[in-house]
Amino acid sequence: METKQISKAVIKRLPRYYRYLGELMEDNVERISSNELSKKMHTTASQIRQDLNNFGGFGQQGYGYNVHYLYTEIGKILGLDTVHPMIILGAGNLGQALANYVDFEKRGFRLVGIFDVNPVLEGIAVRGLEIQMLSELPFFLRENNVEIAILTLPKNKAKEMADILVENGIKAIWNFAHLDLETPDDVIVENVHLSESLMTLSYNLSKYRQEHVDK
Amino acid sequence: METKQISKAVIKRLPRYYRYLGELMEDNVERISSNELSKKMHTTASQIRQDLNNFGGFGQQGYGYNVHYLYTEIGKILGLDTVHPMIILGAGNLGQALANYVDFEKRGFRLVGIFDVNPVLEGIAVRGLEIQMLSELPFFLRENNVEIAILTLPKNKAKEMADILVENGIKAIWNFAHLDLETPDDVIVENVHLSESLMTLSYNLSKYRQEHVDK
Repeated sequence: METKQISKAVIKRLPRYYRYLGELMEDNVERISSNELSKKMHTTASQIRQDLNNFGGFGQQGYGYNVHYLYTEIGKILGLDTVHPMIILGAGNLGQALANYVDFEKRGFRLVGIFDVNPVLEGIAVRGLEIQMLSELPFFLRENNVEIAILTLPKNKAKEMADILVENGIKAIWNFAHLDLETPDDVIVENVHLSESLMTLSYNLSKYRQEHVDK
Repeated sequence: METKQISKAVIKRLPRYYRYLGELMEDNVERISSNELSKKMHTTASQIRQDLNNFGGFGQQGYGYNVHYLYTEIGKILGLDTVHPMIILGAGNLGQALANYVDFEKRGFRLVGIFDVNPVLEGIAVRGLEIQMLSELPFFLRENNVEIAILTLPKNKAKEMADILVENGIKAIWNFAHLDLETPDDVIVENVHLSESLMTLSYNLSKYRQEHVDK
């Protein structure tokens, strides 16, 4: 695969392409023009062509895109053609919600462990895995191949656990804790800050009201 | 308040400012220079000054920012100075996780109803509210003041419910369902597409490995 620099904006759009192409496959659509795809995705045909050209094209003049081929290729670019063993730290509602997301498993994100600090939860099965205590985490990480750690712990606990993850060679953290983790450059962190998303909604709502009601 | 156009990038950063200022308040910090704040936030002092100038400044030369004042003012800009009654559609793990987020309540996002389609859940209390059936939603919306609807339903159900929400005057949807909602322009939608976030992590991980292991 080429290693040229691809802009963050394009990367952000790739999962959306992947999702739309998956829907087209469910509807048994075999090929689609950039025009049709752009209408479906509320963007422009030229943006789609430009985006996909970053990865060498995939389209054929006068034919459009082969949906299954494009879906598979974008999946490869997104790293969905390999299995990613992952663990969840924090077996509360959010951790359990993520554990039960069937779509993740389907795409190669395989849950291999779930941990919590609350002794009441110890041994309870979530998606076939017994909840383990966080004190067992360092041992577990040494004995098992884990690629991604999902952090749904409270802020104070998350910081401490992130350090343990990094010390034990974890290179990817999906962080739901309400803080920015301080990790080395070779550790990839993807944040989901739910309250920031809700505040953005609240901001847009306030702004809309000011512009439309205050007149 | 001024109504000049503020860039999306600035708006995205506001909740982060709010979070950091909240942490400073917890640490009893009364004032901070843009330099110190920028170090904490891993950005530049000039970016902070530029961002905050969008809202008229708040800083004083040689003094810096009054933490409590800035926190309060950004809170107002984000619409956190008023109560936002909200409902959750989908009382599964994710819906319950969001219902139990104490921080939301603290910031004025007050949960007033929680709905599901599963009769087994009917009447079960979540954060003091009994889960109601989705069939009761239109009546509930007519009788109660609801501002924000949180959608944690599966894709097929989410589409139908979004239409009901819009018909009943809901102007803000926080959407966790794995689809882009088709709503009128005056309805504000904020999406949290969890699988897209996980795919972005997976992409960055694959890319990092290609660049560092394949050499």
